[in-house]
Amino acid sequence: MEETKFLETAVKAKEASKKIAALPEELKNKALANIAQNIKNNQHRIFEANQKDLFEGEKLVQEGKLSVSTFNRLKLDENKMRDMIQGIEDIIKLEDPIGKTLLKRQLDDGLILTKISCPIGVLGIIFEARPDVIAQISALAIKSANAVILKGGKESINTNKEIMSVIQEALNKTEGFPPNVLSQVFSRDDVNLMLSMDKYIDLIIPRGGNNLVKFIKENTKIPVLGHADGICHIFTDESADLEKAKRIIIDAKTQYPSACNSVETLLIHKDFKHTEELLEALKDAGITLIDKPESWHKEYSDKILAYKFVNSLEEAINHINEFSSGHTDSIITENKTNAKIFMNTVDSAGVYHNVSTRFADGFRYGFGAEVGISTNKTHARGPVGLEGLTIYKYNLTGNGDIVKDYAEGKKHFNHKDL
Amino acid sequence: MEETKFLETAVKAKEASKKIAALPEELKNKALANIAQNIKNNQHRIFEANQKDLFEGEKLVQEGKLSVSTFNRLKLDENKMRDMIQGIEDIIKLEDPIGKTLLKRQLDDGLILTKISCPIGVLGIIFEARPDVIAQISALAIKSANAVILKGGKESINTNKEIMSVIQEALNKTEGFPPNVLSQVFSRDDVNLMLSMDKYIDLIIPRGGNNLVKFIKENTKIPVLGHADGICHIFTDESADLEKAKRIIIDAKTQYPSACNSVETLLIHKDFKHTEELLEALKDAGITLIDKPESWHKEYSDKILAYKFVNSLEEAINHINEFSSGHTDSIITENKTNAKIFMNTVDSAGVYHNVSTRFADGFRYGFGAEVGISTNKTHARGPVGLEGLTIYKYNLTGNGDIVKDYAEGKKHFNHKDL
Repeated sequence: MEETKFLETAVKAKEASKKIAALPEELKNKALANIAQNIKNNQHRIFEANQKDLFEGEKLVQEGKLSVSTFNRLKLDENKMRDMIQGIEDIIKLEDPIGKTLLKRQLDDGLILTKISCPIGVLGIIFEARPDVIAQISALAIKSANAVILKGGKESINTNKEIMSVIQEALNKTEGFPPNVLSQVFSRDDVNLMLSMDKYIDLIIPRGGNNLVKFIKENTKIPVLGHADGICHIFTDESADLEKAKRIIIDAKTQYPSACNSVETLLIHKDFKHTEELLEALKDAGITLIDKPESWHKEYSDKILAYKFVNSLEEAINHINEFSSGHTDSIITENKTNAKIFMNTVDSAGVYHNVSTRFADGFRYGFGAEVGISTNKTHARGPVGLEGLTIYKYNLTGNGDIVKDYAEGKKHFNHKDL
Repeated sequence: MEETKFLETAVKAKEASKKIAALPEELKNKALANIAQNIKNNQHRIFEANQKDLFEGEKLVQEGKLSVSTFNRLKLDENKMRDMIQGIEDIIKLEDPIGKTLLKRQLDDGLILTKISCPIGVLGIIFEARPDVIAQISALAIKSANAVILKGGKESINTNKEIMSVIQEALNKTEGFPPNVLSQVFSRDDVNLMLSMDKYIDLIIPRGGNNLVKFIKENTKIPVLGHADGICHIFTDESADLEKAKRIIIDAKTQYPSACNSVETLLIHKDFKHTEELLEALKDAGITLIDKPESWHKEYSDKILAYKFVNSLEEAINHINEFSSGHTDSIITENKTNAKIFMNTVDSAGVYHNVSTRFADGFRYGFGAEVGISTNKTHARGPVGLEGLTIYKYNLTGNGDIVKDYAEGKKHFNHKDL
């Protein structure tokens, strides 16, 4: 897309964001219900488009230009289609995150401040391979009253276009729903244009591998909600229960090794008495153990686990605060004081005690929907639900109130929460 | 400062941030009390240093290299000194923003999630002229358990150094308070280094004029909390009460014209019946009125007010959403429906009804302390109190819980807020 064309898309998205911000909950839910229904009614169109992408994808796999795992994520089957529709229906049921009163305070008699949740504005979504992301993100954006510009992977371009057509049809027939809330761009250049449009795009959400997220974080001034690495740690303290340690570490490494919340490094207190038995159990579970310092930085995303002995709780915490990606780290210990120190001092989005790191997930946390997992230190951290797509504004109502009266001492604030 | 030296400062600040994060409230308050006391005891040293800066500043003013207004902000007098000390004592009294339980939820029996407020990490503060900012920001950072790297204006270098010495002495004698929580850098190069250290610095807070803030926002990937322009609007609807309109607009323009929350543009509904009388009253209050389109973008910071007639509420809202800096905008109307539409649709941090824009301020909102005013769409918006210097982490405690049990359907989440 040319820059002027992209700019037009961005300007229209900004305009649409002001309009969707003012929609009542019922209309947003009506639009979502229409989307779910239209996808149900037009599954064949989406499957046909997906067949085209799979046909092209197969050739690319044979030519070695596409990995088998990416190819597998491309594929939409009946199950994924059902999940996609169910996902939208679940979002309809969630509480409206917009228009919530977060604070109501009397500043003085008749001078009332309210802090109201509102949408962020325009989201830029950059995703790879999985075309079902379009439906999920579009639904989250509509529920939270944000406009969205989506850029998907080129491997799934036919599927992406068809899903978006089906969604747009549903929105077009939803009376009162503004146009241009959702738009889609396609080229690599569009990614760069998107990252440069900080005047129009308020938040970028990347959905994809580490390299994509790193590239985005390095190349934009727009806030990015997400995480690049997922280097999670488990520290087995000297007082750890052996059976819990086995259960937790095996789960955290093998239940889904390519997940970002899988453990990558095991720290073991030198005085832990069952080290040998623990390591044997991990090997029996198919885990390859590595004890080289160059592993501290690596996310293997495989059944490979780095391990290291430490002399103290403090050393474990320091190692984690140096090498962790700030995603999720867990301590296994029967010593409650140590658990407390660990949880207070490790600076990560999730800090756990006697629990697998794999629990770091919006659905498991009960958020109902997950926008992504953030390792940021501002705005939203950890698994992010719909709330992460909102900000707030302050409304102040009065009756001719002026600051001069307070500056001159004629009037005095009597702050009182209502 | 050389890059390696700055890097060392940044690494030490990061280490210190982990240590201050774990301090109990009493120790932070003790440190703040010691700072207030040590400033009280050593006022003469600070005044002496300030005299040096004023002596140099006077020469610069005569040479035309320093503005009189900047020179005035440089000057510390007895009043400013008292306010500085009082400011620290006020911050001691505020509720500790750290360690608050924001959510406590059972995911399953014995599997407890808590969302706890925690510090952001390392703040980079870049400020101009006013040396009293050091004491204020240092106190806010300590209360919120963040480490800080401060860079002040070169005009106040002697005062800045002396205030920091007095503060550091107080911290050194506070038993248990970690070193390197506060550090100061001095050169222009240090600003660029600070802006590049996104690995170590988590949030930049600029305290100064538009140009400073714009430069910073343009030149860093670190989140910036603040605002560049303050182009605030007042819309006088057709049903506005004339007396309220006069009071509010005169207050918003003249009570402190250089403040960011002063009004810059007045929109008047073409059917408002008292336009002539209103404009006469504004002129009588010493306000210069301008009706040129090039003014829509300008922050005059003076008793100059742009004005424009609009045909409808919608046109007023569209004008504001296009030209406002998203700071604070107000409607004057007796029509409650119009007020509601305005407040829901104007996309600014503060959207007011029948109130002067000058109320946009952390103290007036009852926050007790103000970090700054943000026009960001993520993290913190509007006047920002101590809460804006915090984020949260998730703690999860269990007893050997693993995800496999839930994935295989052996166990089921029973999310319940506690």
